[in-house]
Amino acid sequence: MKALHLVEPNKIELVDIPTPQNLKKGEVLIKMAYSPINPSDLAFLTGGYGVQRPLPTVPGFEGSGEVIASGGGFYANYLKGKRVACVANNKGDGTWAEYMLTDATKCVVLSKSVSYEQASMSFVNPLTAVELGEMAKKEGYGGIVMDAAASSLSKMVLYQARKHGLGFAGVVRKESQVQELQSRRVDLVVNSSADNWKGQLKEWAGQFGKVLFLDAVGGGSLPFDILRCLPAQSKMIIYGRLDFENPPVLSPQDFIFYEYKLEGYWLSKTASRKSFLKSMSDTRKVQTMLKNGFETTIQKSLPLDNYKEAFELYSKNMSGGKVLFDLNK
Amino acid sequence: MKALHLVEPNKIELVDIPTPQNLKKGEVLIKMAYSPINPSDLAFLTGGYGVQRPLPTVPGFEGSGEVIASGGGFYANYLKGKRVACVANNKGDGTWAEYMLTDATKCVVLSKSVSYEQASMSFVNPLTAVELGEMAKKEGYGGIVMDAAASSLSKMVLYQARKHGLGFAGVVRKESQVQELQSRRVDLVVNSSADNWKGQLKEWAGQFGKVLFLDAVGGGSLPFDILRCLPAQSKMIIYGRLDFENPPVLSPQDFIFYEYKLEGYWLSKTASRKSFLKSMSDTRKVQTMLKNGFETTIQKSLPLDNYKEAFELYSKNMSGGKVLFDLNK
Repeated sequence: MKALHLVEPNKIELVDIPTPQNLKKGEVLIKMAYSPINPSDLAFLTGGYGVQRPLPTVPGFEGSGEVIASGGGFYANYLKGKRVACVANNKGDGTWAEYMLTDATKCVVLSKSVSYEQASMSFVNPLTAVELGEMAKKEGYGGIVMDAAASSLSKMVLYQARKHGLGFAGVVRKESQVQELQSRRVDLVVNSSADNWKGQLKEWAGQFGKVLFLDAVGGGSLPFDILRCLPAQSKMIIYGRLDFENPPVLSPQDFIFYEYKLEGYWLSKTASRKSFLKSMSDTRKVQTMLKNGFETTIQKSLPLDNYKEAFELYSKNMSGGKVLFDLNK
Repeated sequence: MKALHLVEPNKIELVDIPTPQNLKKGEVLIKMAYSPINPSDLAFLTGGYGVQRPLPTVPGFEGSGEVIASGGGFYANYLKGKRVACVANNKGDGTWAEYMLTDATKCVVLSKSVSYEQASMSFVNPLTAVELGEMAKKEGYGGIVMDAAASSLSKMVLYQARKHGLGFAGVVRKESQVQELQSRRVDLVVNSSADNWKGQLKEWAGQFGKVLFLDAVGGGSLPFDILRCLPAQSKMIIYGRLDFENPPVLSPQDFIFYEYKLEGYWLSKTASRKSFLKSMSDTRKVQTMLKNGFETTIQKSLPLDNYKEAFELYSKNMSGGKVLFDLNK
């Protein structure tokens, strides 16, 4: 089968490898349909860090396809012939291949109304949004602010914020994105290239006891500039690293005097830790989101052969929508 | 009266100002005896950050002395003539003066066995140790690691860790400090100037699910080098800034892939937020600590006139013991 291989950090190759065989009980083989490129995939590709399995390995965390074989066991057998959304298990290869072997418990059966394209993005963004929305509510944050706020993820976080009765503000870098966010009716959108965005953000944030800040940039001065606009005891969660070139420089004083908190968030890990039942329940919430017009914009679908073009397209214009691998081509 | 004034960030002057008068109900006037220089005071002196009150102001957070006047009210009247440990209230001037006006609820009556010198350090270090020990236990950390571990604070944190059944490791920079810590019978002490300290720390930390790391350095590469030796989901708390020159550079990957957490901690703030009853209860724990041989080493006591010498002495050799202002001289 055709697949992509991460042979060493930052080095990808198109390879021809054997289709997985010898399924064990509880495992299924999926003929893949689509799989997106997520920021967390890009992070995975660059670091020895998160890569817990030996290289080379097939990257790709989530996708969709049809279950064509079962290694036995009730649920695995039930899935045979079904259209599913699926994630890689942490032990083996990922989704950027024509076929993937994974645990049956990593699959969710699709309702007919959901396309393979949309279904391929059922986990990373939607579950991140569900989980972070629940965290914000549970830990008492009055509002959520996001940078890179024209992203697909931000749309879903906005939905969750509304659901929990929380405020939502977005920070973007272009005037066109300001309009896009205004059309989504967020409470506040500021353009970090414009004047006085900090004053506006600070005023909005001041109405809450504390604010949850979701940072996709992870570099340069922007993230901590945003944090400094927020009330004491606010929390920053770094979940992406759009700015790889400029490592963020921490100001310990801010953390000491304002009692800020910082955490990292890696959905692949959270999702694989999650119990099967919790995943099912979250995925049901996701299907509700999709029905409510929170579909993800797709920029382009490309075959694995064009992987360089796919990465370039996505890296250059992340807010333009997702780039998917079309794994049937 | 004689006092020190912070006239602008990083600028201190010895001044002669009026002794506080016109006490309101619930307030007391204290003839001060001793007050220590704490790392949190140094932080206060450098930044506009934490300084919430207009300059000039008398710095100094904690001290000891005798209550010589009351503004009325049951507890304030009761305190008159009593030896107390005290903290500044957040509105007015601090402890580095011959007299201080504060709220009666910021005073704790001393038992006869406690000296004014030891009593002047009843709050910042002891309450930090009590609070962080309780946090470690409550949030499920199996062990505590500290850098600058030859400090007065570390001695008290060790006591708390033992009390809660938690592991304790110290990171120091000199061979003489290694011996000092070994004599306190910590689980592990490593010298960050020696070889393979990371391997040793990693091995020790690996026995726990997650570890709480208390960082007093807040600069350079050391804090994040330590964090990287700890298991996923460990938390780093920056409570000091011994290294002012080198801002710490964050590695977002560490936070994303290992789900590390980072928080700032400023005891002055925590202590002033604390209810009177909780403070009293914590201070009782502190008196127990003192009885159990956890007294703080005092390097030298100096009058306010010698403030430059005092700051220099303390800054050069923080692990040599506390430097106190002798406010009767």
